[in-house]
Amino acid sequence: MRATVLGTGSWGTTFAAVLADAGCDVTVWGRSEAVVRQIRDQHRNEAYLPGIDLPRGVTATTDLGAAVADARLVAVAVPSQVARATLAPLAGSLRSDAVAVSLMKGVELGTDRRMSEVVAAALGLPDERVAVVSGPNLAREIARRQPTATVVASTSDETARLVAGAIASSYFRPYTNPDVVGVELCGAVKNVIALAVGISQGRGLGYNTMATVITRGLVEITRLGLALGAAPETFPGLAGMGDLMATCASPDSRNHTLGGHIGRGMGLDEAIAATGGTAEAVKSCRPVLELAQRLDVEMPITEAVVKVLYEGLPVDQLAPMLLARPHRAEAVRR
Amino acid sequence: MRATVLGTGSWGTTFAAVLADAGCDVTVWGRSEAVVRQIRDQHRNEAYLPGIDLPRGVTATTDLGAAVADARLVAVAVPSQVARATLAPLAGSLRSDAVAVSLMKGVELGTDRRMSEVVAAALGLPDERVAVVSGPNLAREIARRQPTATVVASTSDETARLVAGAIASSYFRPYTNPDVVGVELCGAVKNVIALAVGISQGRGLGYNTMATVITRGLVEITRLGLALGAAPETFPGLAGMGDLMATCASPDSRNHTLGGHIGRGMGLDEAIAATGGTAEAVKSCRPVLELAQRLDVEMPITEAVVKVLYEGLPVDQLAPMLLARPHRAEAVRR
Repeated sequence: MRATVLGTGSWGTTFAAVLADAGCDVTVWGRSEAVVRQIRDQHRNEAYLPGIDLPRGVTATTDLGAAVADARLVAVAVPSQVARATLAPLAGSLRSDAVAVSLMKGVELGTDRRMSEVVAAALGLPDERVAVVSGPNLAREIARRQPTATVVASTSDETARLVAGAIASSYFRPYTNPDVVGVELCGAVKNVIALAVGISQGRGLGYNTMATVITRGLVEITRLGLALGAAPETFPGLAGMGDLMATCASPDSRNHTLGGHIGRGMGLDEAIAATGGTAEAVKSCRPVLELAQRLDVEMPITEAVVKVLYEGLPVDQLAPMLLARPHRAEAVRR
Repeated sequence: MRATVLGTGSWGTTFAAVLADAGCDVTVWGRSEAVVRQIRDQHRNEAYLPGIDLPRGVTATTDLGAAVADARLVAVAVPSQVARATLAPLAGSLRSDAVAVSLMKGVELGTDRRMSEVVAAALGLPDERVAVVSGPNLAREIARRQPTATVVASTSDETARLVAGAIASSYFRPYTNPDVVGVELCGAVKNVIALAVGISQGRGLGYNTMATVITRGLVEITRLGLALGAAPETFPGLAGMGDLMATCASPDSRNHTLGGHIGRGMGLDEAIAATGGTAEAVKSCRPVLELAQRLDVEMPITEAVVKVLYEGLPVDQLAPMLLARPHRAEAVRR
């Protein structure tokens, strides 16, 4: 199958390698002439995947139209906020049987659209020809062909199976899921929980606290998801719990790292500087909390993160704030 | 409230401290005169909780009958396989309003009974007066008063609330759950998954693989639990995912440690020696798999662990074995 990946970051490049290892002919599109040349001629992307040899079946181009012309599968891994503008020139130019795959996390600022909605709208595709791939997928580990699994979500089972077949290999195992809303919500909110875990670890707290914050964090993501029409089964799965766990365990997560600085006593500006830039959850925690409040959904961990980052709540009050609520039954109320 | 804990191991002693911090008058019972004297006179249990000062409200005795005579709450934290014999002399001697709490994991060998069933039978109590406490509860972290949450499971909501009220404090937050079967099953099977995670980490695999094994491990525990009548909500909760995650993250877990030795290439006997003794999952993985097979439940990770430990499967085939199955939908089939 001919497949194209838009974006030469670490996840886009890794996904191209996954497609090639699964037997696809793969073209990567990027803006940078130098990066494209390195991928095409040296099978390397040293800026994002240092030391990794890419499969021979991956080539690269800076010509966007040529990149997608013959592709049956077009995966999009550009920065979320430029996706619409990047894809707009391609509207109506894909093969009539092409499917698009969003590899992006978060929502579009201004429109609050999920990334698969942005992809469908920008490319002029119906929902059934769009899929989302999300799971415990730290790019650098997959680029080293370490075994992992992922979720392919689409409202069309046929599209989900097509994408799953295009990426399955000895080290990468896709599971299909019809719940696009749930899968994308998990990807958008996980970073707030990773930041909370970072704070607790920065305070010197151990594995019980980490596991409690992640587990109760997943409960509040689930509550929000159910209010938005997501399926309950998605949240304990690979795109929910799996991605959350990998993100919270990895020292590479910026949200986790920034939370650690906050936990060790830095203010927000100082923590952003120490992290070398801001992190997704710093921007998203307030919109997530506002959405939850509009839907009358309790998200105590997200609320605590907002209070610590923006309202001066001392970090040593974060844990008691989470724990001091009245006893109640554990299960999510449906 | 007067409360008694039977057992002076690390979890029993920690649970006594939790009860005392929540306002109970607590007596710990143990067989060892020396350990009992140290707890009673020095408020210490150096063998199991080195460096930890126990609350003043904890006392200790070697007199089993006296320990339970006035107790409203009797928590049992003795080794699982001696629970029945330890409790037998107490049958019929508890206060008429007393409740028992099982802090034990696993099943009784020979009878395949869950530990709360053993407690109820040995003490002659109806199920409604028995509860189980389980969650992401590494004893040494709780003994340091690090914040965590736990699950109190009982078929009686009144009993669950009584126990929750007796243990709730600023650092220990109980949630109630009526699903005793699910909570105990999670505690019994988690160690098999922790051993599989240890193997993958011993092989040098990273966070994606860890998160995938834990997530898919929880799916197979859930499948088995549903076949046994457990509630689906229990598994993504604190006693399921929470405990599994804390166990897999902690370097203190013997199952995890032993798995690491196997992953680095040792045979089973050598790994047991290097761990300083066997681990729960080494004993329980085959009975769990047999139970699953009788119920026609697929447990590929448990099966792979059994094959690696007992049937000579090379560890580098463990991951492909988990991943090479046909694509399928992610959700647990109900």
